[in-house]
Amino acid sequence: MNFCSQCGEKVRFAVPAGDDRPRYLCDACGTIHYQNPRIVAGTLPVMGSKVLLCKRAITPRKGHWTLPAGYMENAETTRQAATRETWEEACADVTLGDLYTLIDLPHINQVYMIFRAELVGGFSAGPESLEVALFEEHEIPWDILAFPTIERTLKHYYADRKCAYYPLHISTITPEDRERYLGSA
Amino acid sequence: MNFCSQCGEKVRFAVPAGDDRPRYLCDACGTIHYQNPRIVAGTLPVMGSKVLLCKRAITPRKGHWTLPAGYMENAETTRQAATRETWEEACADVTLGDLYTLIDLPHINQVYMIFRAELVGGFSAGPESLEVALFEEHEIPWDILAFPTIERTLKHYYADRKCAYYPLHISTITPEDRERYLGSA
Repeated sequence: MNFCSQCGEKVRFAVPAGDDRPRYLCDACGTIHYQNPRIVAGTLPVMGSKVLLCKRAITPRKGHWTLPAGYMENAETTRQAATRETWEEACADVTLGDLYTLIDLPHINQVYMIFRAELVGGFSAGPESLEVALFEEHEIPWDILAFPTIERTLKHYYADRKCAYYPLHISTITPEDRERYLGSA
Repeated sequence: MNFCSQCGEKVRFAVPAGDDRPRYLCDACGTIHYQNPRIVAGTLPVMGSKVLLCKRAITPRKGHWTLPAGYMENAETTRQAATRETWEEACADVTLGDLYTLIDLPHINQVYMIFRAELVGGFSAGPESLEVALFEEHEIPWDILAFPTIERTLKHYYADRKCAYYPLHISTITPEDRERYLGSA
């Protein structure tokens, strides 16, 4: 951020009076520009024993497999965001279940929220996907999943499926976790 | 938003190519300015049979009672945000429990995330609180709670406490709910 989005003057990065962390400040109009984490909402769509994955058609991680998920938009709920992303990426209708994984990524200011979901009817690749397919557990392309959040959610799912009990899992992915996972990608 | 925070030129509000909703666009440098909901993280701090509430020292809803909660910051986790807000507003250390209410407010682009918590030791009013106190159920100031999210979380708590079972409650507060609650405030 270089300029004030309200008045167009230059901003500076400093701790405002009464605050304890630096913000982008506009001395011309007095606006303090707060920046906050974004929610990535998505689903784990299941049909029988199979899970739906999407091969990404866009960067980052183009060509890698992911669960349908994306940035929550203003004016929608978390459940609407998860359903919308599933429709956009996989042209798939789902019946949404419980919130299943909530994963903080503080180093990139994201919070993942993945809901369990039952696939209703067909699917096909949306504009952001190269391919969409159903996978049995032994077919999951573990080596070419897009993000550590996706790997972690799938691992929870296959562990929990053994006892058919799917509690909410809250966890954090650190820069080290992410680097180990993504390498130089 | 009137100006591009990257280059300082005027922005326009229009649907970008390949998108399906309007964004603030900068024709000068090509930046698309996405805007997303913010997370309000907080706790329901309990000591024995009592709940900790804070009387707000700041607008909105100055003088009304709330659970400690506030905007999640970049570079922290949801659990850290909830713990930090409890410290800032009530100078209270807590042992965090499970996520308890997740409440979408799509008309104001907020997602509340309130965690159950056990109060550890003392408390006092932080700079954003006029007063902090413990309440038995019959003492809760229902008529002067700050926000419908707080009323809803407390109602879930007292209903669930009867059977000592506290599942995650996901719900939405609509503009009508909010207006009914806040009136002209």
